[in-house]
Amino acid sequence: MQQMDGSADTPELEQLYRDFAANDMAPLWTQRDDLMPMTPAPQAVPHVWRWKTLYDIAERSGELVPVGRGGERRAVGLTNPGLPGTGYATPTLWCAIQYLGGHETAPEHRHSQNAFRFVVEGEGVWTVVNGDPVRMSRGDLLLTPGWNFHGHHNDTPNPMAWIDGLDIPFSSQMDVGFFEFGSERVTDEASPPFSRAERLWAHPGLRPLSVLENKVSSPLSAYRWEHTDAALTEQLQLEDEGFPATVSQGHAAIRYSNPTTGGDVMSTIRCEFHRLRAGASTPATHEVGSSVWQVFEGKGTVVLGGVETPLETGDLFVVPSWVPWSLHADTQFDLFRFNDGPIMERLNFARTFVPSAQ
Amino acid sequence: MQQMDGSADTPELEQLYRDFAANDMAPLWTQRDDLMPMTPAPQAVPHVWRWKTLYDIAERSGELVPVGRGGERRAVGLTNPGLPGTGYATPTLWCAIQYLGGHETAPEHRHSQNAFRFVVEGEGVWTVVNGDPVRMSRGDLLLTPGWNFHGHHNDTPNPMAWIDGLDIPFSSQMDVGFFEFGSERVTDEASPPFSRAERLWAHPGLRPLSVLENKVSSPLSAYRWEHTDAALTEQLQLEDEGFPATVSQGHAAIRYSNPTTGGDVMSTIRCEFHRLRAGASTPATHEVGSSVWQVFEGKGTVVLGGVETPLETGDLFVVPSWVPWSLHADTQFDLFRFNDGPIMERLNFARTFVPSAQ
Amino acid sequence: MQQMDGSADTPELEQLYRDFAANDMAPLWTQRDDLMPMTPAPQAVPHVWRWKTLYDIAERSGELVPVGRGGERRAVGLTNPGLPGTGYATPTLWCAIQYLGGHETAPEHRHSQNAFRFVVEGEGVWTVVNGDPVRMSRGDLLLTPGWNFHGHHNDTPNPMAWIDGLDIPFSSQMDVGFFEFGSERVTDEASPPFSRAERLWAHPGLRPLSVLENKVSSPLSAYRWEHTDAALTEQLQLEDEGFPATVSQGHAAIRYSNPTTGGDVMSTIRCEFHRLRAGASTPATHEVGSSVWQVFEGKGTVVLGGVETPLETGDLFVVPSWVPWSLHADTQFDLFRFNDGPIMERLNFARTFVPSAQ
Amino acid sequence: MQQMDGSADTPELEQLYRDFAANDMAPLWTQRDDLMPMTPAPQAVPHVWRWKTLYDIAERSGELVPVGRGGERRAVGLTNPGLPGTGYATPTLWCAIQYLGGHETAPEHRHSQNAFRFVVEGEGVWTVVNGDPVRMSRGDLLLTPGWNFHGHHNDTPNPMAWIDGLDIPFSSQMDVGFFEFGSERVTDEASPPFSRAERLWAHPGLRPLSVLENKVSSPLSAYRWEHTDAALTEQLQLEDEGFPATVSQGHAAIRYSNPTTGGDVMSTIRCEFHRLRAGASTPATHEVGSSVWQVFEGKGTVVLGGVETPLETGDLFVVPSWVPWSLHADTQFDLFRFNDGPIMERLNFARTFVPSAQ
Repeated sequence: MQQMDGSADTPELEQLYRDFAANDMAPLWTQRDDLMPMTPAPQAVPHVWRWKTLYDIAERSGELVPVGRGGERRAVGLTNPGLPGTGYATPTLWCAIQYLGGHETAPEHRHSQNAFRFVVEGEGVWTVVNGDPVRMSRGDLLLTPGWNFHGHHNDTPNPMAWIDGLDIPFSSQMDVGFFEFGSERVTDEASPPFSRAERLWAHPGLRPLSVLENKVSSPLSAYRWEHTDAALTEQLQLEDEGFPATVSQGHAAIRYSNPTTGGDVMSTIRCEFHRLRAGASTPATHEVGSSVWQVFEGKGTVVLGGVETPLETGDLFVVPSWVPWSLHADTQFDLFRFNDGPIMERLNFARTFVPSAQ
Repeated sequence: MQQMDGSADTPELEQLYRDFAANDMAPLWTQRDDLMPMTPAPQAVPHVWRWKTLYDIAERSGELVPVGRGGERRAVGLTNPGLPGTGYATPTLWCAIQYLGGHETAPEHRHSQNAFRFVVEGEGVWTVVNGDPVRMSRGDLLLTPGWNFHGHHNDTPNPMAWIDGLDIPFSSQMDVGFFEFGSERVTDEASPPFSRAERLWAHPGLRPLSVLENKVSSPLSAYRWEHTDAALTEQLQLEDEGFPATVSQGHAAIRYSNPTTGGDVMSTIRCEFHRLRAGASTPATHEVGSSVWQVFEGKGTVVLGGVETPLETGDLFVVPSWVPWSLHADTQFDLFRFNDGPIMERLNFARTFVPSAQ
Repeated sequence: MQQMDGSADTPELEQLYRDFAANDMAPLWTQRDDLMPMTPAPQAVPHVWRWKTLYDIAERSGELVPVGRGGERRAVGLTNPGLPGTGYATPTLWCAIQYLGGHETAPEHRHSQNAFRFVVEGEGVWTVVNGDPVRMSRGDLLLTPGWNFHGHHNDTPNPMAWIDGLDIPFSSQMDVGFFEFGSERVTDEASPPFSRAERLWAHPGLRPLSVLENKVSSPLSAYRWEHTDAALTEQLQLEDEGFPATVSQGHAAIRYSNPTTGGDVMSTIRCEFHRLRAGASTPATHEVGSSVWQVFEGKGTVVLGGVETPLETGDLFVVPSWVPWSLHADTQFDLFRFNDGPIMERLNFARTFVPSAQ
Repeated sequence: MQQMDGSADTPELEQLYRDFAANDMAPLWTQRDDLMPMTPAPQAVPHVWRWKTLYDIAERSGELVPVGRGGERRAVGLTNPGLPGTGYATPTLWCAIQYLGGHETAPEHRHSQNAFRFVVEGEGVWTVVNGDPVRMSRGDLLLTPGWNFHGHHNDTPNPMAWIDGLDIPFSSQMDVGFFEFGSERVTDEASPPFSRAERLWAHPGLRPLSVLENKVSSPLSAYRWEHTDAALTEQLQLEDEGFPATVSQGHAAIRYSNPTTGGDVMSTIRCEFHRLRAGASTPATHEVGSSVWQVFEGKGTVVLGGVETPLETGDLFVVPSWVPWSLHADTQFDLFRFNDGPIMERLNFARTFVPSAQ
């Protein structure tokens, strides 16, 4: 053990360090580098999961593990290799593939953790949010903000899998979570094409006069693929016509928003959808906070911390804080992403750095 | 002239009042009742204008008065009978019928006053807002927030008329207005089905990632009838299904909102659309601030300060501050309204009183 | 009467204009210049009132006009010469000298209008705000935000005069005012050195944990001269020491703020105090919105719209919207000002222009 | 290993779990209880540290460990016994005793972590924040918000110790921290009685007009004991006089606030000061989020999760999330506390539960 100036230990110093430990104390000077690095030094590492692998394993879970009360969900989390044993994708975000067999039901519960589902393929499941059945179809983003009861039921004989995103790691580390069990089966087994939430809220720029107070989380429980696709298509067409609309050349993107505030859909999780034209690239970008991406369609590559990886439909990858990332599109390349941007912004830690923009 | 306690005048007192006047002073005690009434005592009065009359006179203006630079618009304002000579519909709001003949153009200009147009009938005109041509069709709300250049051009051989709403009286009385002339003809004579603003912004709950800062006024320059109608239809269907969605039984309504904030479309003007089922009524309601309503479709009556008036398509009426109003629908009854709600709320003067709710 | 293009009248046109009038309509094209000027064109004019004159007339009012219920206050408003008959100092602001004789009481009432008092000389009166007696001394700013009951009582045998500032013109023109009479005498005749509001709130940066919700108006009912003077003194000393602290060279200033929000003390009225070193000047400045200034101490001049006027203690002047103003200090020159800045900012009409800064 | 329904393992199931591990996946159903407990289940435990012990050990550090570049500070963190090896007091907060010998200097640096110091005894050190020397005296709260350069220098021959509070655990776990070294010695070795920040900002309700934009963190770098003590004294006197002022009977408290917003002093850390009359108690209270308390003066007890501990001047204790805490005062009992309330509130996880209030 060394002193702050690197001089050798003495018996007095050794006793001092023993007394620190015995009295639940820890000197800063031996930890400063670790506790306060020059730039974010995440334990989490960049990683790519293959959809094919995830789906195959989830399918086997479907055969071997029944879904029901207690375990609650047949969801298998992506565990960051740098955070072994945690089940965390990043220090703030949990991401899982959830698998529901034909005619199965995942029972209702609620928790303070914020959750969403994104559907990369398949259909046939309705998620019931506070009694409101919400169809889950390809390309849709479905919200279950904190403390809303929710369950899922498969209205078809065929299985369906999707990804879940939650702020479980944040909630767990910050000790903020509450949980309650609800009914064994979903409280409404109907399978309407549109939820009541959408029927009230999915009209562009129009708010029901019956709900004028602002909501902490978006009241719009489903963001349909048709709208997302149309928004991205228009951005690229506007770019073609010579008008500003895209984030950068060939890169269209939308952020899902809470129509009562214009802000993020939930207080801890930001959701976005990105589309790159074939051949387009994004510059290497450092961001404070962590992200999870899923390829929705197309082929391309991601460079994470200098390592390039080819990607296909359904593949997922995580970007830990401050690790530079960039994308390149071989075909038109559609990607969903979620991150902890609202945490970073609301607590004033957000920072972005694009070396090429210097 | 009397003293505060009602005693008779004296020469000294008479001299005092002369000295007040001579020195640009005015005693509160003789004015208190007028300056500070027990409840709002507007000079503006409730009034109904008939669309048929307005349209007929506007049409004759079209024959007799050319549109062009200087006068700028062939717009005829509704003058509140209680505010003669002002051209004001209420102390804050200006409302006009604007008429544009076949192939006519109203030249471009900009002003700090906020403006919108609402179309009760007709089609064929494009309003060009900061170079972006916006189609004007029946049931549409079109925005021209303060300091955006705008002009109108009629792309057809047929005339078209609509209503304009502005905060001219507020701006004029508060001395906040600036004005600039723009080009003689509109800067883009195209007639696309959708404006670029809509193509970027009219996707429910989706924001372009290229425009993340919030906007003082809504960037969505057109709110289309199809969306408004769908939103109201859904509210009434949800009510039929037993779910909360309407303002009150049989009364559906939406507020047009700024997608970047969820708030009102402009800083001084609130816009709403109301639909009553046949047979439905609203309770008599007092509100601080003034409103202008236009019947969009259907038949019914309004009671303004106790006086009932039957209404038909296109008819307009004003509700001065604190004058109780109620509606009754004979058929399905669709009405557009705009008011100065944002002024009242932002300055903390908003108050509503529904006697029957006591 | 002329057409938009200046062509001569015809019988048809004359009939059209008659029909406009008969149907409560007014064409924009004949009014456009007036309704929408190129820059704000206030009817209000710059004007200076001499404190000596105001005080002398107020004193004579004290002899001739009793104070009491109905008239409510022995307050004499400054009437802008450009707004004759209104009693308004500006289109938004009312300003009066109020005079209370020895041992007199002004009865309690409340109103939605926001009010304050500023004391340029004298002492001995307590204003009782919602039952809390607030001492009024030289240099103090005392608040009575909308809908707080308040009365005044003179605890001494000597008269006292001060200025009142209210948003009466705004409230009156916008029809937002409510009024209620309270008790004939003040509800607490004590004369404590500090109000309960100050004892709770006048601790820099410290909020009582018992009141965590934010308040629309400042809960701090008294801003004492000692604090204002100290703040300005420190700014000038910091400037002397070479640190940024003043608005411009030799010009110190503070804004009175609501400690629960950091914003203005009331939703419609901004209050500030300015101190210029002897010899200092401010650049000619155009501002949207109107201000009233009172000299607190010292000698100097104001230039209003190009006209220079010397000023002494107690003198008041108004600056209508967009009229350029500048100050020059002959001695150390202390001035209180209030204006309608919060209205302009909350409704997005604020603009400032300093020609010399171009 | 068991299935969701508790049935026995099979070779297929065992293979499945091996494949989870091999592919960086983790099933939710075996972790659900841990990841999503029914109520917050912190690893951190309640704990009390004795000031006498801390001070003695810090003093020995002063003899044995020089302060300087690299280790940066002679600060010894309180390590929560439930979070061994971390140096964290709670999952979000770091708290240390810092010790600076006579005429020693702790070099300048800056970091994105938010920091403050609170002085329970002693004097003679100035902390220099962005070049502004801030005196540190008994009872003062001194701020060093994120990314401000700061160092400390002892202007006397006597040592001084105080507590530091930072959001190091939050920053470290969330990977948001940046760090930069500054000058070896403080950039201004003066020892003025008041900092420039105080001279600009410590005037109740008064903002310098030269700084109108709101600040993320409080610009007031020192909250002096004189003001805190006066505020608490007034609250208890108001209570004696029969007026609402205290949190509960005999319990006065203030929150340190940012004068530009009225909100918390920093984006992640809330600071408060509490005073209980002799004999007063607070009810057992559960709160989401964690707190650190330090006794400033007086004697009393704390009950943490049902365990009562007597406390004296300088003693520190931590309250993990949702662990019920209550205080009892034997003498007048003054306590400083800081917690992560702003994180909980800004991300919508705040909840409080007082069983006795049910």
